[in-house]
Amino acid sequence: MTGIEGKRDHGGGVDGAAARYGGTRADWIDLSTGINPLPYPVPEFTADAWTALPDRGAFDALYAAARAFWNVPDGAGILAAPGASALIARIPALEPAGRVHIPAPTYNEHWAAFRAHGWQEGQGDALVVVHPNNPDGRIWTGADLAGDRRLTVIDESFGDVMPAASLVHLAEQPGVIVLKSFGKFWGLAGLRLGFAIARPETIVRLAELIGPWAVSGPGLETGAAALRDMDWAEVTRQRLAQESERLDTSMTRAGATVVGGTTLFRLYDVGDAMAWQDRLAQRHVWSRIFPYSDRWLRLGLPGREAHWARLEEALS
Amino acid sequence: MTGIEGKRDHGGGVDGAAARYGGTRADWIDLSTGINPLPYPVPEFTADAWTALPDRGAFDALYAAARAFWNVPDGAGILAAPGASALIARIPALEPAGRVHIPAPTYNEHWAAFRAHGWQEGQGDALVVVHPNNPDGRIWTGADLAGDRRLTVIDESFGDVMPAASLVHLAEQPGVIVLKSFGKFWGLAGLRLGFAIARPETIVRLAELIGPWAVSGPGLETGAAALRDMDWAEVTRQRLAQESERLDTSMTRAGATVVGGTTLFRLYDVGDAMAWQDRLAQRHVWSRIFPYSDRWLRLGLPGREAHWARLEEALS
Repeated sequence: MTGIEGKRDHGGGVDGAAARYGGTRADWIDLSTGINPLPYPVPEFTADAWTALPDRGAFDALYAAARAFWNVPDGAGILAAPGASALIARIPALEPAGRVHIPAPTYNEHWAAFRAHGWQEGQGDALVVVHPNNPDGRIWTGADLAGDRRLTVIDESFGDVMPAASLVHLAEQPGVIVLKSFGKFWGLAGLRLGFAIARPETIVRLAELIGPWAVSGPGLETGAAALRDMDWAEVTRQRLAQESERLDTSMTRAGATVVGGTTLFRLYDVGDAMAWQDRLAQRHVWSRIFPYSDRWLRLGLPGREAHWARLEEALS
Repeated sequence: MTGIEGKRDHGGGVDGAAARYGGTRADWIDLSTGINPLPYPVPEFTADAWTALPDRGAFDALYAAARAFWNVPDGAGILAAPGASALIARIPALEPAGRVHIPAPTYNEHWAAFRAHGWQEGQGDALVVVHPNNPDGRIWTGADLAGDRRLTVIDESFGDVMPAASLVHLAEQPGVIVLKSFGKFWGLAGLRLGFAIARPETIVRLAELIGPWAVSGPGLETGAAALRDMDWAEVTRQRLAQESERLDTSMTRAGATVVGGTTLFRLYDVGDAMAWQDRLAQRHVWSRIFPYSDRWLRLGLPGREAHWARLEEALS
């Protein structure tokens, strides 16, 4: 039996942690991802959402909301997909294989997808930046991305906590693709919804690679409702900022040093990452460590006071 | 703004019909698809279904249920995707472009996908059959598919009404891919769930092309529940058989001749297909006609007695 999840190093995997440390999945607090723990409330769906093939009207409503929410430039089109992951897996097929530069460390699915399509590492034909970067929170500017190449991917999956830094205005330029994710900021990773923003000729080709009716009816309706709800977004940004400060306070008090991150996840230098992960796992708190660093630990935000209490107890 | 739905000729498109003939979408009876109008009841979801990245456990539960339901041979693996469409769009990337034979008439997304990947029409490297075929219900046997080629796609999207005819046992053979759809028989097209069944080495490559976490949490949970529910499937098969007979009776009484189909949709020779579509559309019943035939009309099943009544009135 083949599963496609968990083949590469990723957050998540609480099932695996529970198998090793005990408890059921429900006993665990999963801080290994950067998913907002207080998600956008899933709306009531229309009768058609589950049963009908998503119609043009549902896509158009979502695209109108997305265009307004992200200030998509007039010269760019939008494509919805079942998660930013679906787009990441397909983007390397847009151009003949060449050299792609992906500044490390970063989210590893980009390189996996380019490699699977025969690309080599190196400067020249394509550049991928995660903005802000995962896990260290690095911000990129238009100047960082200047230069001639066939493909420039700007993955803003965690960008909705800091909309002023968005590089979406670059999506009008040839070969630039800006990615947006619905799973992180809105906390609905199970919904599978992500977006590509790029020039219309690029969008048409990506759409062909993704196939028709790519997004579920509930996904279309939830996405449209959430992207129209500017108030929820603003209140959420403020709350995430406060809670990430609280997490920094707890962690620095316990001896960690802040390396960076966003207000959806925080990256710490803890000296011995495996020992810290183990210590938290004893209390059924699951964290993220990285194959390329033995000092870094990444944490998402606890969603409830009881979860904060358990984390703080595990750190004390 | 770019939508990916509706670029090719397809069923659905009630929004367009309503714009032309009047009424709101809710006023229309959509018989233009082959979707079961009495869908599998969507279960209560776990708390994680919307908010967490689908974990290995959720995929494994779905795959175990799928393996049992479809009698998947031991030598084959399974991959879940956001709709059979997502798989159809990606399959041509598994092999270098060559010649593909797709017996016509049939579902047009297969050829569109192969063409987009640079394939030419012709015998030799790949064969695609829809089994039973859409729109005429043609059944294929193992003997029909014999022969040496790199890729053999058996699209059983409508096959669950006649499980005894399934060719799933061929999925152990190199280069054979059997597709299954959740949207038609279970009536949940908005859920976006489809499956590929093939040898493990093919499944691994398809998974790479689809990307991780391809299916929504609600999709995984609904799929697992439905595929375990053999009783619902059996009762549904009997009901669909009775209702498709009822549809044939109404249509032949009105002057149509049965060409074929499955118990999810029926294909009729009506003489003047556009005139019949127009006549039904005046009563806000939407039907399917085809660019390659001016005589054929395809109808799905009405889901309620009031819908039957309106159809029969339109036919009288």
